[in-house]
Amino acid sequence: MADSRFFENHGPYSLQQICDICGATLKDPSKQEVMIKEIATFTSAKEDEICFFYDKKKKQQAAEIKATACVTTEELSASLPQGVIVLIAENPKLAFLKLNYAMYSEPRPQAEIKPSAVIAKTARIGENCFIGDHVVLEDNVKIGNNCILEPGCVISRGCEIGDNCRIGVGAHISHCLMGNNCYIYGGARIGWDGFGFMFMEGQHKKIPQLGRVIIGNDVEIGANSCIDRGAMDDTVIGDGCRIDNLVQVAHNIKLGRGCILVSQTGIAGSCTFGDYVVCGGQSGFADHLNIGSGAQIAAQSGVMRDIEPGMTVMGSPAVPFKDFMRQSAFLIKAGKK
Amino acid sequence: MADSRFFENHGPYSLQQICDICGATLKDPSKQEVMIKEIATFTSAKEDEICFFYDKKKKQQAAEIKATACVTTEELSASLPQGVIVLIAENPKLAFLKLNYAMYSEPRPQAEIKPSAVIAKTARIGENCFIGDHVVLEDNVKIGNNCILEPGCVISRGCEIGDNCRIGVGAHISHCLMGNNCYIYGGARIGWDGFGFMFMEGQHKKIPQLGRVIIGNDVEIGANSCIDRGAMDDTVIGDGCRIDNLVQVAHNIKLGRGCILVSQTGIAGSCTFGDYVVCGGQSGFADHLNIGSGAQIAAQSGVMRDIEPGMTVMGSPAVPFKDFMRQSAFLIKAGKK
Amino acid sequence: MADSRFFENHGPYSLQQICDICGATLKDPSKQEVMIKEIATFTSAKEDEICFFYDKKKKQQAAEIKATACVTTEELSASLPQGVIVLIAENPKLAFLKLNYAMYSEPRPQAEIKPSAVIAKTARIGENCFIGDHVVLEDNVKIGNNCILEPGCVISRGCEIGDNCRIGVGAHISHCLMGNNCYIYGGARIGWDGFGFMFMEGQHKKIPQLGRVIIGNDVEIGANSCIDRGAMDDTVIGDGCRIDNLVQVAHNIKLGRGCILVSQTGIAGSCTFGDYVVCGGQSGFADHLNIGSGAQIAAQSGVMRDIEPGMTVMGSPAVPFKDFMRQSAFLIKAGKK
Repeated sequence: MADSRFFENHGPYSLQQICDICGATLKDPSKQEVMIKEIATFTSAKEDEICFFYDKKKKQQAAEIKATACVTTEELSASLPQGVIVLIAENPKLAFLKLNYAMYSEPRPQAEIKPSAVIAKTARIGENCFIGDHVVLEDNVKIGNNCILEPGCVISRGCEIGDNCRIGVGAHISHCLMGNNCYIYGGARIGWDGFGFMFMEGQHKKIPQLGRVIIGNDVEIGANSCIDRGAMDDTVIGDGCRIDNLVQVAHNIKLGRGCILVSQTGIAGSCTFGDYVVCGGQSGFADHLNIGSGAQIAAQSGVMRDIEPGMTVMGSPAVPFKDFMRQSAFLIKAGKK
Repeated sequence: MADSRFFENHGPYSLQQICDICGATLKDPSKQEVMIKEIATFTSAKEDEICFFYDKKKKQQAAEIKATACVTTEELSASLPQGVIVLIAENPKLAFLKLNYAMYSEPRPQAEIKPSAVIAKTARIGENCFIGDHVVLEDNVKIGNNCILEPGCVISRGCEIGDNCRIGVGAHISHCLMGNNCYIYGGARIGWDGFGFMFMEGQHKKIPQLGRVIIGNDVEIGANSCIDRGAMDDTVIGDGCRIDNLVQVAHNIKLGRGCILVSQTGIAGSCTFGDYVVCGGQSGFADHLNIGSGAQIAAQSGVMRDIEPGMTVMGSPAVPFKDFMRQSAFLIKAGKK
Repeated sequence: MADSRFFENHGPYSLQQICDICGATLKDPSKQEVMIKEIATFTSAKEDEICFFYDKKKKQQAAEIKATACVTTEELSASLPQGVIVLIAENPKLAFLKLNYAMYSEPRPQAEIKPSAVIAKTARIGENCFIGDHVVLEDNVKIGNNCILEPGCVISRGCEIGDNCRIGVGAHISHCLMGNNCYIYGGARIGWDGFGFMFMEGQHKKIPQLGRVIIGNDVEIGANSCIDRGAMDDTVIGDGCRIDNLVQVAHNIKLGRGCILVSQTGIAGSCTFGDYVVCGGQSGFADHLNIGSGAQIAAQSGVMRDIEPGMTVMGSPAVPFKDFMRQSAFLIKAGKK
């Protein structure tokens, strides 16, 4: 299934190998030498392919599976058609991830500094890095080990990037200290001036933006997203945060660990988020808010007040989820009259 | 009107030539040698210029036209002031397009590969292409004939691009197969990983994104827009789709033919659109929805359910247009109390 | 406080020097030789640092200030703890700005044309400019004096840029005439085709986009924002406008002086804005609207009608602020039932 123009397939694997990789067991051990060439989706898998079934609501479709083999739970395996070889796993989702990681990868570029890259004399590059065409590393930049800097990315003066980071095509990093294992997608803009002005003498006068962007470990920042640096303070992105494409994170924002910001989310200045906050697509936040750990903000919500930990809110202005559902039901009734 | 620093003017044209180009007829044939230097808007056109009048609601402004000539219908021509030379066309809009195409163009860069471009040995480039400065073509890339690759764009390993395509300044194409006559604006990011994670062991673990982006013919994708590649499946953009700036198209989305996504639209993963769907600006879509052919989604709508073919919806959550108007009238009343 | 990897600190300054810079006076003139090393925020400032106190609502926190010195008003000075050296200024906000400008700066790159930049023979560059790596200046481009063109930016054929402008990393300027003192952030896309199509013969046919983008003086345009050029007419950005990140300004829009567009604002084609209009984040505007001077549009509003000068509106569709508050109170009540 994965197009060999873009991905490497490390298979085929025998079902026994797959069991070993996934922590699964074959219902019929005699099938252990059957070979599998690809992983495929539930609905598209065909001969020589394996799929994964873990959604109880899809028992009906499961009966139509045409894959050679399927990983599922003991309970769900009853829904599979005759002829599909069954592998049982306690957690088929995790098994799916494990087999994916083992079977496919993107080819990693070899360690190399392309001749068209421009690297300041004072820049330091760790071991085993790939520095792509037209990359610019300015003065005093530090790059850790095993990093991939894709074509045309620019790392401005003084930035420090940890180990195992990937900086995408045309991304720009400035005023930033970044941890390990970060993945910055193409066109992301990290470290520009926050949007701060004072209206005086008939003009919007710029407030100097003198902070930084501090990015933890294991962070992903999506394509064309913007993370502004702090004003007096820093902007902070906690470990394990996942930021989607076209997201705006304004100056002085603090995100805790493992926050998820879905595409086109916009957060105004100086908000503080706890851990594992989830923001739906196109959600927006007024400035200086506190958003508690584990809060869930539905797509397109407009958050104008602090949110307690663990709460789910929705709407613009955002209200508790149940209230929103009642508001919505009420309005739908009004619209039908 | 068109600034010669940026556009070429292939005129002046005589009114007779203009009639031939547009399929129009002169009311007063004795004027056929009058020369026209520019096309201008209805309200700004002056001597030596031609304008087009087809909006019935603007009869009053039409009476003030100062152009030398005006293309309109027989019926509307009565509204024009004395002294304006009248050209009659069955479809003045189409006439406008035709004269525009004939009179103006942007200079096309000559076929050339700029010396600062970096082109892998295994990349294949068709005939009559312009490859701009600092362009990067990676291994096994295929570019069709008559393509324009503007400065700094990057085509990643294995991508295939058809004939007559234009890839804008700093755009990035990866994991993508693209048809003919496509126009990708600057900074567009095509083929990045979809936003897919599973929460396990206290972490958002990345789901490998092993699909592609399949783009049909005659597609436009706007500046800084993002089209993610599929997860197991492909993301598909149908023939003739028009995608505006800053739009997010997530993984596995299928767009039919001729869909229009206005600026800042965001579509979550695995949605399937029919043909000629129109999405207003800042509209948003939850994941896994089916949107029927010809559906119209108003600006800022939040679509949370499937939409039937041909329906017009509005609001967040989106409801049928009439219902929204009633909801809105009801709320406006509540706001006035 | 400002990290020396990224900013220059021109201090330390004595309190007397600070008084001279800020137009402040020392309550206790014997302290004039005390030295200050950094400006810091109200809550984080410590020994050898100065902070500014001008928000009446924060008297309680002011009592905890640990800075060596604080600039405030005569009236507010009573709230400061013993031991903090007090400087009195009529306008502490302005004093803050002045000291910031004097104390910190970003190092300005020296005038230089980097060898990897590609500059057309017909391009003209003023005095004292920095032209960064991989910059492209196409034919007939004119750049004023004292400009900074950061790595990888592209200025397309025929564009003219005034004095003291800064064009950010990877930004692209085309079909544009720009005034003095403009600051374009990284990845901004200025001058692409507006989104104009006519549906004919089963296709969305492109309407040629033959206008320009005219940018006044002292304009800021944020990272990854898009300003489309006009169709027949021009797109115009007035003097002193401040446009945040990820904003969409469509074709033919006219912005007056000093307008503020907060992040992710989207304005459809042919809108005309007066002076000093403020648009909150994620606000959206239908096409062909007139927005009066001084109007304020709250975040996430959806503006579908003209707005009178000075009005504040909110909601989608946007209504006067008071009406919105009543609508909102009404709905919140409905949601609690």
